[in-house]
Amino acid sequence: MSDWTPYSERARDWFEALRDAICAEFEAIEREAGSDAAFDYAPWQRATVDGESGGETGGGTRGLMKGKVFEKVGVNVSTVRGALSPDFAASINGASAQQNAFSATGISLVAPMANPHVPAVHMNTRFLTTTKAWFGGGADLNPPIPYAQDTDEFHAALREACDAHGPDYYERFKAWADDYFYIPHRKVHRGVGGIFYDHLECGDEAAWEANFAFTQDVGRAFLSVFPQLVRRRMGLAFTPAEKLTQLEYRGRYAEFNLVYDRGTLFGLRTGGNIDAILMSLPPEAVWS
Amino acid sequence: MSDWTPYSERARDWFEALRDAICAEFEAIEREAGSDAAFDYAPWQRATVDGESGGETGGGTRGLMKGKVFEKVGVNVSTVRGALSPDFAASINGASAQQNAFSATGISLVAPMANPHVPAVHMNTRFLTTTKAWFGGGADLNPPIPYAQDTDEFHAALREACDAHGPDYYERFKAWADDYFYIPHRKVHRGVGGIFYDHLECGDEAAWEANFAFTQDVGRAFLSVFPQLVRRRMGLAFTPAEKLTQLEYRGRYAEFNLVYDRGTLFGLRTGGNIDAILMSLPPEAVWS
Repeated sequence: MSDWTPYSERARDWFEALRDAICAEFEAIEREAGSDAAFDYAPWQRATVDGESGGETGGGTRGLMKGKVFEKVGVNVSTVRGALSPDFAASINGASAQQNAFSATGISLVAPMANPHVPAVHMNTRFLTTTKAWFGGGADLNPPIPYAQDTDEFHAALREACDAHGPDYYERFKAWADDYFYIPHRKVHRGVGGIFYDHLECGDEAAWEANFAFTQDVGRAFLSVFPQLVRRRMGLAFTPAEKLTQLEYRGRYAEFNLVYDRGTLFGLRTGGNIDAILMSLPPEAVWS
Repeated sequence: MSDWTPYSERARDWFEALRDAICAEFEAIEREAGSDAAFDYAPWQRATVDGESGGETGGGTRGLMKGKVFEKVGVNVSTVRGALSPDFAASINGASAQQNAFSATGISLVAPMANPHVPAVHMNTRFLTTTKAWFGGGADLNPPIPYAQDTDEFHAALREACDAHGPDYYERFKAWADDYFYIPHRKVHRGVGGIFYDHLECGDEAAWEANFAFTQDVGRAFLSVFPQLVRRRMGLAFTPAEKLTQLEYRGRYAEFNLVYDRGTLFGLRTGGNIDAILMSLPPEAVWS
């Protein structure tokens, strides 16, 4: 393939449609809880020649809602293209100092919840091109107070999406999430896992269609299962001790994101948009 | 010098005496505020052969007080010796894979305050030996709501300690703090600075005495000036907006410590004592 542009556009259109569906569903949950909270959308543009990143153009929309159920939820869709800095290009799949053109489009979502019985969640899927083209993404559940039923349903939904596209996808991508979302200094996982995948390469158009269909199904699985978990738990009463458990749990989440998360560190060190990068940090956290 | 042990012991005795004086003063401040908060002291021992650190023995005491004025204050004195792992030894002053014996004794203090008008503070001084021996340390002020008077007095106290020991100390060590306590991704300093010094080498006993005297004076300067700033501001009323300013300011502090602070990252990555390492994180932080 010499030009993935029409495919990037289809991926972007999907990420935007998925964003719209998720945000509508989250706002519906807020209304069920008696709140009229709604997403604010802040478009951003990047059209600079940045010495560190090598220069890129594009932009996206950052959606943010602070509600009664969703203490803070951010949903970003971004679509950028440009040239990777020569040093950095060497570390990127399919890129080099000589061939450093790239494009990226993706959706990312982080939702820390008000009620400690409701699991927090993270979901991200993306399509990237260099001289190669690939999809990546995943979703993981972060319950301050874990319920086996919620964990099982979350995994079951992702398993169904995986099983429809590759017999080994679920085992591989679940193991990848377990490996990735781990906090070595505390010897604990960040949450109860999910799936993580990357470099799902598109050697030709048929492979792109297959990988795109899988990525769409991951998004649909997220949209089918997470609101159900929220609705199940959002009405539960909680104690100050349970709220404290949640705030301490969020401290671990912040530790993971600031010390280990590759996306966060890459963003911080290459002068990315701070608000978008640090959207992943919790609204409030405690270290007792 | 072939054996710095008696000198390490003198340094350790000083760090413990300084700790006792600081804790007594902080408890006195709590009593003036009508609180009977007091430090809890938790001794810890390390006598393991740790695959990553190469093996060390020793221990220390972690003092912790949660009070009315001091929302949370930790004061650690630790004294350890052993063998650096060969890989790590190569990066340490005076050590190598072949000569990897080390000893370290030091005091570290972090004090996030309840009232946003009262500056938070960090202070740390230490004596280390490998085939070389040196002092290091510093102190920096972190006011969520800065007052020029407080900043000036803090710097003046440190300048006085510096000027008594080296004509260029204050300028050098202040610049070092400005360079070190900087958050590149936000393009802001962590606080209003102070001093930072390292590798203040002790080529002979006379140099040790001089550097020890300086390090003592840094501790005395801290003890003379910080309580005065606390007493000046601790009675001021503050608004919810000012408290929020403080909690957001602490978010930046946590970002600095988790993304950039060399001591924190070294500790986390070499399996150090998590409670002691992460004592530097705020009791509560907000990302709005």
